[in-house]
Amino acid sequence: MSLVEDVLLGNRLALARLLTQIENGSETGRKALDELFAHAGKAHLIGVTGAPGTGKSTLVNQIARAYRNPAAGPPRQVGIVAVDPTSPFSGGAILGDRVRMRDLSGDPGVFIRSMASRGSLGGLAAATSGVVQALDAAGFEVILIETVGAGQAEVEIARLAHTTLVIEAPGLGDDIQAIKAGILEIADLLVINKADRPGVEASERALLSMLQLAHPKAHVFRNNFSKPGHFSETVETAQAEDQCIPPVLRTTATDGSGILELSEAIEQHRQYLERSGELAHRERERLVAELNLLVRELLVSRWRERLPDAQYHGFVARLVQREISPWQAAQGLLEASTAGA
Amino acid sequence: MSLVEDVLLGNRLALARLLTQIENGSETGRKALDELFAHAGKAHLIGVTGAPGTGKSTLVNQIARAYRNPAAGPPRQVGIVAVDPTSPFSGGAILGDRVRMRDLSGDPGVFIRSMASRGSLGGLAAATSGVVQALDAAGFEVILIETVGAGQAEVEIARLAHTTLVIEAPGLGDDIQAIKAGILEIADLLVINKADRPGVEASERALLSMLQLAHPKAHVFRNNFSKPGHFSETVETAQAEDQCIPPVLRTTATDGSGILELSEAIEQHRQYLERSGELAHRERERLVAELNLLVRELLVSRWRERLPDAQYHGFVARLVQREISPWQAAQGLLEASTAGA
Repeated sequence: MSLVEDVLLGNRLALARLLTQIENGSETGRKALDELFAHAGKAHLIGVTGAPGTGKSTLVNQIARAYRNPAAGPPRQVGIVAVDPTSPFSGGAILGDRVRMRDLSGDPGVFIRSMASRGSLGGLAAATSGVVQALDAAGFEVILIETVGAGQAEVEIARLAHTTLVIEAPGLGDDIQAIKAGILEIADLLVINKADRPGVEASERALLSMLQLAHPKAHVFRNNFSKPGHFSETVETAQAEDQCIPPVLRTTATDGSGILELSEAIEQHRQYLERSGELAHRERERLVAELNLLVRELLVSRWRERLPDAQYHGFVARLVQREISPWQAAQGLLEASTAGA
Repeated sequence: MSLVEDVLLGNRLALARLLTQIENGSETGRKALDELFAHAGKAHLIGVTGAPGTGKSTLVNQIARAYRNPAAGPPRQVGIVAVDPTSPFSGGAILGDRVRMRDLSGDPGVFIRSMASRGSLGGLAAATSGVVQALDAAGFEVILIETVGAGQAEVEIARLAHTTLVIEAPGLGDDIQAIKAGILEIADLLVINKADRPGVEASERALLSMLQLAHPKAHVFRNNFSKPGHFSETVETAQAEDQCIPPVLRTTATDGSGILELSEAIEQHRQYLERSGELAHRERERLVAELNLLVRELLVSRWRERLPDAQYHGFVARLVQREISPWQAAQGLLEASTAGA
């Protein structure tokens, strides 16, 4: 039986092996992805991102547990992909992972995979996308994609998700304005975690005023987890009025406060995506972004294969001597590789 | 007189105009960079990066002021390039910038430029590199390149610098381990800013043990700014033993503590780079990284120009229907564009 068939039948060991092949960008992994692609497209892909220190890993654990023990309905199969664009370590070497393992391991309905930097951002995003696709095809119904930080890397990885959660925490300092400006574009839900800490009111006010600045005509609602039931109405109202406004929720992942409300908000976002036709739109955007990433990687590797080393080093030498500018060198290299093709 | 000549003569208005052209990726900007390239290569390029909340902007201001009022020697011409890969805003709209402006504006020896996301990471890094080159050619002797965050974007931008400072602050939480793993590779100097805050000892211990883990045979020294003179010896000793070990310094940018020692450490790193031949090596690496970025951008834009829109959309449609996988679509698109060339 092939690796792909094993994966489709739910063999965890086969899945783990396949993910390694995909991460390494091997031919086996690539071909398996081609086969699996037709089986994927069913999972709800949830991106979770935010600055360091916001407690993302603990929050992701809690969300996974909520899907495993839902208030209503059957438990869901949950995949977790933890992506760290800043770390050269992979495969469970990341600190937050050990904590996670202790918490969720042994549950056959949860599959956890850590991914680290593959040298280039494009490479990491492409590998992440492949891993998510394989988990999707393997039958995981909810896939949580967690990234550290809030830079361009995270924005590219967030494009892989249907629903994106941006996590904040009180008192992260003066750069917070700059982060939010970029984050507003990608967030479907804003979460202030560590909501038991001082400064939560100020963080929430800052977030809400940023949101109002960005959407001057819209009303912004917030989740108040002391009033159960309140949030579910307001999210739908807000989304009906302006689909761009991310609701702001408070959680304390360490004691579980607000997790139920967060899970409901995620589920409502998914329902909203389906009802509005936005899901199909996002799925398309997601696939196009992935395609563009792959094209970029392929263009660079094919160009480099076509170009003789001597020519590359010749241009580099003239560049280092400042005889030609970087732009002139780049133009020259492209012409050289085209001529040689 | 041409824009380039004006810039070389020190005309600030001409420089500001040229930087806008470079940021916009215009033909004028591109040609000017080709001309300016032979005049660049003299400045000391200092990258400053770190997670949000570490107080980077204030620290960069203080470093700039130290270069403007040195303990010995003439004041230096200082350029500051503040890069925010997460923000869609540019040209002084970033909050930290206003503070900076108030602090340093009016000093003709300082030139400040803010840069924001250009849609793609490659585009931003290329534009930053161009702006730095123009400032270098215009006679700025020290150029501080500040980036928000610690993701792949910052690593790519750090490759543009000769000396890279990584800024930490006490109490940024549990993700800190993951960040440092990636950061160790790019840091020449590690700075714990906000050193007046509780938790500075713990942060320093964590950093030092990470460094020792990464360099088991080496001794790690730390700056103790209560003992002046101590650091200058230890840096040189450490660098002689193992050039990879970044010294750890403490600063409090808001009151200026540790800034003098930091400036000295930066200067010593520069001298070390020159003495060891490492400067030439880094300059080469820097230019090669820039060249590779430009090649990547050019490959993508040329490919897209060659490809008829109808063909692109045809492949996208089959991908969205899941008839072909992203990899198959990418391969198909590359073959289509080659066939059409």
